[in-house]
Amino acid sequence: MDRHERQFDRELGDLNKKLIRMAAVVETMIDKTISELVNRDETIAAAVPEMEEELNRLQLDIDDEAMTLLATQQPVAIDLRFIVTATKINSELERIGDLVINITENVHTLAHQPPLKPLIDIPRMADLARKMVRDSLEAFIRQDVLQAQNVIDADDEVDALKAQVIRELLTYMMADPQTIERALALILIARHMERIADHATNIAQDVIYLVQARDVRHPNLRRDKTQE
Amino acid sequence: MDRHERQFDRELGDLNKKLIRMAAVVETMIDKTISELVNRDETIAAAVPEMEEELNRLQLDIDDEAMTLLATQQPVAIDLRFIVTATKINSELERIGDLVINITENVHTLAHQPPLKPLIDIPRMADLARKMVRDSLEAFIRQDVLQAQNVIDADDEVDALKAQVIRELLTYMMADPQTIERALALILIARHMERIADHATNIAQDVIYLVQARDVRHPNLRRDKTQE
Repeated sequence: MDRHERQFDRELGDLNKKLIRMAAVVETMIDKTISELVNRDETIAAAVPEMEEELNRLQLDIDDEAMTLLATQQPVAIDLRFIVTATKINSELERIGDLVINITENVHTLAHQPPLKPLIDIPRMADLARKMVRDSLEAFIRQDVLQAQNVIDADDEVDALKAQVIRELLTYMMADPQTIERALALILIARHMERIADHATNIAQDVIYLVQARDVRHPNLRRDKTQE
Repeated sequence: MDRHERQFDRELGDLNKKLIRMAAVVETMIDKTISELVNRDETIAAAVPEMEEELNRLQLDIDDEAMTLLATQQPVAIDLRFIVTATKINSELERIGDLVINITENVHTLAHQPPLKPLIDIPRMADLARKMVRDSLEAFIRQDVLQAQNVIDADDEVDALKAQVIRELLTYMMADPQTIERALALILIARHMERIADHATNIAQDVIYLVQARDVRHPNLRRDKTQE
């Protein structure tokens, strides 16, 4: 391996490290936010906005490094796809950060009101979503199609939980208009959590596309593109 | 201009055309869906799922073409950033398509129930969101920072309308539990529409980053990256 290749590998490794760091920050943000929701203690998620700032910084760094790598190393084949995929994963993780911020706002609102009900399904959704983020990143680093497929499969469970949360909260709202604002806040939290799982699913689909150079994002489409 | 450059320009032009087509499909999807909501006629948005299939096909084509361009032409500077940006815009447009599909589901539910109220703010949100999609794409093609900034500014208006929609529907829900399901469907439609505007904003931010090679996505961050 010549010096040029070693340099390239080192820079790819650095890109990986930054993406893993982004995923770790996202996981902590989800964890703190849901812990605040469950424990009704506003101090728990106090550092979440700062963490989102770190995500934003990492996103810029990764985009810059990817552009530099593309321009200076002119990679081809799997290396090229890997770098372009990194810039897509990057955007997904940053948007998950935005969604956690949205959740935090709803959580703060709820902290000032009497609890509506014991929370079980939403923390379960959060656990699943967090695991999906971690697993999708691991699948990317290892280029592991099977693990990526597991992430995609887990998304169905999150969707089912969300539907259940909405159904249950609707009955609360119907029975007692006093619960409407709190129930609506919980419904929005569940929807944001579902969208976090969707972003992890997007990452997993990008990983499969990367590895197999075929597209699972729209499995029913015939790929009849002729190469120019 | 040599033959190689002409070929490159032609391929870039083709990429542009496909992105413009995606944006046009997205606009029509939003239009049909909201027209169905307002006119309570389920046939209006019947073709929307087919349009989403076309979006998916276009997304795959654009990704393929972008990868081929990067691998075979090894562009640098603005051309390189343009192509990577195209793959990001691509994802944004495809996700807008997904959101319109979500809206369609809520619209179908509402078509079978008596109307809750005359709809004014949601169609207004849809008009704004549609214009933001069109303008963000135009800003990309023309590399027009001012037009991109207008898109970003319009997002505040959409956010304000969404807040107003939610406030108003909450009062309906509180006053009469019979309205809860319909009001919730309308709230979800407003939220999806807001997210469509967010995706158009993402595109506009990517355009500014492309043109100015500085990042408006997180304006408060100091960019102190040293070029390797």
